[in-house]
Amino acid sequence: MKNILTYIKNHPLYILILACPLAAVAHSAGWGAGWVFGLSAAGVIPLAGLIGEATESLASHTGPKIGGLINASLGNAAELIITLFAIKRGLLDLVKASITGSIIGNLLFVLGLSIVVGGLKNGIQRFDRRHTVNYTILLGIALVGLVTPSLFSHSTASGLTQKVEVLSLSVAAVMIIIYILGIIFSLKAPAAEGIGIPAKAEKEDKPEWSVLKSILVLAGSTGGVVWMSELLVGSVEAVVAGTGISEFFLGIILVPIIGNIAEHLVAVKVAYKNKMELSMEIAVSSSLQIALFVAPILVFISLLMGNPLTLVFNPFELAALGAAVVICYAVSADGESNWLEGAALLAVYLIFGLAFFIFPV
Amino acid sequence: MKNILTYIKNHPLYILILACPLAAVAHSAGWGAGWVFGLSAAGVIPLAGLIGEATESLASHTGPKIGGLINASLGNAAELIITLFAIKRGLLDLVKASITGSIIGNLLFVLGLSIVVGGLKNGIQRFDRRHTVNYTILLGIALVGLVTPSLFSHSTASGLTQKVEVLSLSVAAVMIIIYILGIIFSLKAPAAEGIGIPAKAEKEDKPEWSVLKSILVLAGSTGGVVWMSELLVGSVEAVVAGTGISEFFLGIILVPIIGNIAEHLVAVKVAYKNKMELSMEIAVSSSLQIALFVAPILVFISLLMGNPLTLVFNPFELAALGAAVVICYAVSADGESNWLEGAALLAVYLIFGLAFFIFPV
Amino acid sequence: MKNILTYIKNHPLYILILACPLAAVAHSAGWGAGWVFGLSAAGVIPLAGLIGEATESLASHTGPKIGGLINASLGNAAELIITLFAIKRGLLDLVKASITGSIIGNLLFVLGLSIVVGGLKNGIQRFDRRHTVNYTILLGIALVGLVTPSLFSHSTASGLTQKVEVLSLSVAAVMIIIYILGIIFSLKAPAAEGIGIPAKAEKEDKPEWSVLKSILVLAGSTGGVVWMSELLVGSVEAVVAGTGISEFFLGIILVPIIGNIAEHLVAVKVAYKNKMELSMEIAVSSSLQIALFVAPILVFISLLMGNPLTLVFNPFELAALGAAVVICYAVSADGESNWLEGAALLAVYLIFGLAFFIFPV
Repeated sequence: MKNILTYIKNHPLYILILACPLAAVAHSAGWGAGWVFGLSAAGVIPLAGLIGEATESLASHTGPKIGGLINASLGNAAELIITLFAIKRGLLDLVKASITGSIIGNLLFVLGLSIVVGGLKNGIQRFDRRHTVNYTILLGIALVGLVTPSLFSHSTASGLTQKVEVLSLSVAAVMIIIYILGIIFSLKAPAAEGIGIPAKAEKEDKPEWSVLKSILVLAGSTGGVVWMSELLVGSVEAVVAGTGISEFFLGIILVPIIGNIAEHLVAVKVAYKNKMELSMEIAVSSSLQIALFVAPILVFISLLMGNPLTLVFNPFELAALGAAVVICYAVSADGESNWLEGAALLAVYLIFGLAFFIFPV
Repeated sequence: MKNILTYIKNHPLYILILACPLAAVAHSAGWGAGWVFGLSAAGVIPLAGLIGEATESLASHTGPKIGGLINASLGNAAELIITLFAIKRGLLDLVKASITGSIIGNLLFVLGLSIVVGGLKNGIQRFDRRHTVNYTILLGIALVGLVTPSLFSHSTASGLTQKVEVLSLSVAAVMIIIYILGIIFSLKAPAAEGIGIPAKAEKEDKPEWSVLKSILVLAGSTGGVVWMSELLVGSVEAVVAGTGISEFFLGIILVPIIGNIAEHLVAVKVAYKNKMELSMEIAVSSSLQIALFVAPILVFISLLMGNPLTLVFNPFELAALGAAVVICYAVSADGESNWLEGAALLAVYLIFGLAFFIFPV
Repeated sequence: MKNILTYIKNHPLYILILACPLAAVAHSAGWGAGWVFGLSAAGVIPLAGLIGEATESLASHTGPKIGGLINASLGNAAELIITLFAIKRGLLDLVKASITGSIIGNLLFVLGLSIVVGGLKNGIQRFDRRHTVNYTILLGIALVGLVTPSLFSHSTASGLTQKVEVLSLSVAAVMIIIYILGIIFSLKAPAAEGIGIPAKAEKEDKPEWSVLKSILVLAGSTGGVVWMSELLVGSVEAVVAGTGISEFFLGIILVPIIGNIAEHLVAVKVAYKNKMELSMEIAVSSSLQIALFVAPILVFISLLMGNPLTLVFNPFELAALGAAVVICYAVSADGESNWLEGAALLAVYLIFGLAFFIFPV
């Protein structure tokens, strides 16, 4: 009991787990879509955090190779589950917006906040630019993969849906191959701090869970996320209808925050502790996982589910993704960061956020 | 008297001050719009130079903090005044073109010429790339700020004028905040050579004016610019109608040169003296002032003047801005310059100049 | 005789020279367009290789200055000849696609393959980043030169053909001037490994031909290319009609490979031998020659031939060119390469290849 209290003290957000039963009550008792949406969203936050911790714990028992694979596949489990429910409901715009939102959220908001907090506390922070350059090159590929089907789709006559579908599947396959190559590269690299293994530092202030406990927590929290996601996605349409907030805005700003906030806090915390390199790795590798793994996987799964998702994004999403990758490259390529660069990333996020809010797509 | 002669000898362009009374005569005597335009344009050149010198002098008396602020706000006074008159007359395309033209003029023409002249004289020139990278990141934000409202405006149905206006104002506010943060960052930086304080080297060959003299010169030359700008802007429409040169071309090529030529010459001169870092600082920080300070300020002032200026630029302006920022980043990110890089910048300026001339927008 | 056998053993591709007479037979005997196309394409490969070797040999006799000029003008002779025949026949889309294809083929496919092969064999490879940065800046100009006329052409009303033509000619002139400046820069640079002199390393395993032999081989193989090109281009339309493969796809993927495969193999070979810098130089300088020299020259020549070629590319070509230049910059700017970066370049090439194949323009 005391353990649990200490644990909660160290993870104040986890108190939000109480939102889970409330969300169920709200749903059954018919409190209205707003309550269900808000409570289930709140409930996802601690569950996503627990998935992350259990994954970490499990990975620490298996050695880096298997650990890297576990991390690579489960790192964004919460978001994957939410988007699968959304695909099932045919909310494809929400899914695509949440992919975009996760990528720019990590590259601009999380990284920007980390650099500001770290820079104000520690002055100029240095990191190994080789690493970040490799990451941003992979992000560049992801960008090409997301832009190409969109470009060909927007510019050609309609009625070519099937071709767009084929191109999306092909591009998704290439992206997954590059993601796997990236993991192999990291595992073989001398200092094995590769793509799939971002969250090393979390270990420090984390209980060493046994394998069994890790698996149980993983199973339980994943089940919880499935439960909450169903409620969350089920209430989206009513919320959109009731409040006038667009499906697109929910997808691009809210879903990514809900699914990753625990991880985001870790990135900011380690930046504060002057471990900028780790902070960048968490933020950028999380974007990469979404772009090169989650997005292409969704293309394949959605096809099996009968609601095929194509990699066709609207021009605003593409502009935001392009700006995020390029500015992220410019910030990281020199191997140094200062708070002004962080403020710059936040400003870009803010500008796009304003635009998405004022012009609901 | 001898002093004045020596002074004019050192600043041969200042002889153009004689164009001011002639412009007034041309206007009153009805010599035609061409004469008024040409003479008042010529008259602005020395006055803009005097504003710059007086600002410098004043700043040198106040210590770096206040000096930085003075420079930051008065550094582009001449151009600000011209554009205010143009807004008053509703020449919004001219205003936007002159914003674009100032930015690309500094980044491509002035910087390119400086690098060519400096490189031919001194071989490979080195500079602190940290600085220039910081600048170009801020330029990147400015670019996002200028592209976003344009993108949303071009892609959405018409009739949304009000939303574009709201987005422009929001983005303008973000840009000004980043500009202020940039000044704070420079003032706190160890080697305080920040954004607002570009023109240090000018001191060398400059008379040390007293505070009183600085203020008098500042007041006088600002008054002169107001006078000339009114004549200049008043004659634009007639010149456009008479010669077939487009309002857009006047704005993008001529106005920026008139308003900044004195500063431009300084940038080239210090590059020749192998102070490439200072030269870059003058050119790039001048672009930054226009993009992150003058442009957003004009959005707010124009609203008060009843002729609201939105941050919606045409695709050619956006392409030119994007190309200028990216190539400027590539040239500066390696901390070295050679004459071929300078020639590259000039070639890009020339290509866009040709395109703007052949295709009047 | 023994010499020739050894030579062929060292250059197994050269056995393809036997395709030349077969192509002629296929044409005369009416075997069909497919045979003529395939055989004449195969026949160009060894001839292009011989032109390259003879040029090299000749250059080694003349000293670097004249040698640089010879290389600069004859380095892409095979491709120039093919495109001239295509212009004569009015296949302007094929010509433009082959320009694009050569540039992205070198930057993405050849460079990517070299980096993968070199990286798998030698681990992380280092090279002088100053050089590659200079090259990519020039590529940036080429990109501006290719994008600008397209942008103005796409966005303005039709009926402006003449203006597009004038702009193309002006931009072509600027590009040639920059190309000449680039050669002058290389010749004057301390370590004279400039733009026009990429193929130094080939010397190692190459017979030292006399001046006379070089000229004879050059004349003979150039004549052979003229002969094969006529057959090749003459069969294109029938192949397009018969197979459904688009003229655009032939131009963007096949023609560049045919015209440059010998040079490409050298780039991969030297990367394998851990001479990454030379490998990059071959790939990137070959792109540069196409972009800043061959393309503008074709604009002028095509005008004389009465089938004026404008520098107006379709959006897919521009997107591929832009992505290639930017990713190539990111890969080369840090002065290091590893096989993952190479795989990234290949992935981008593959994505665009798939898109071009699935969506025939």
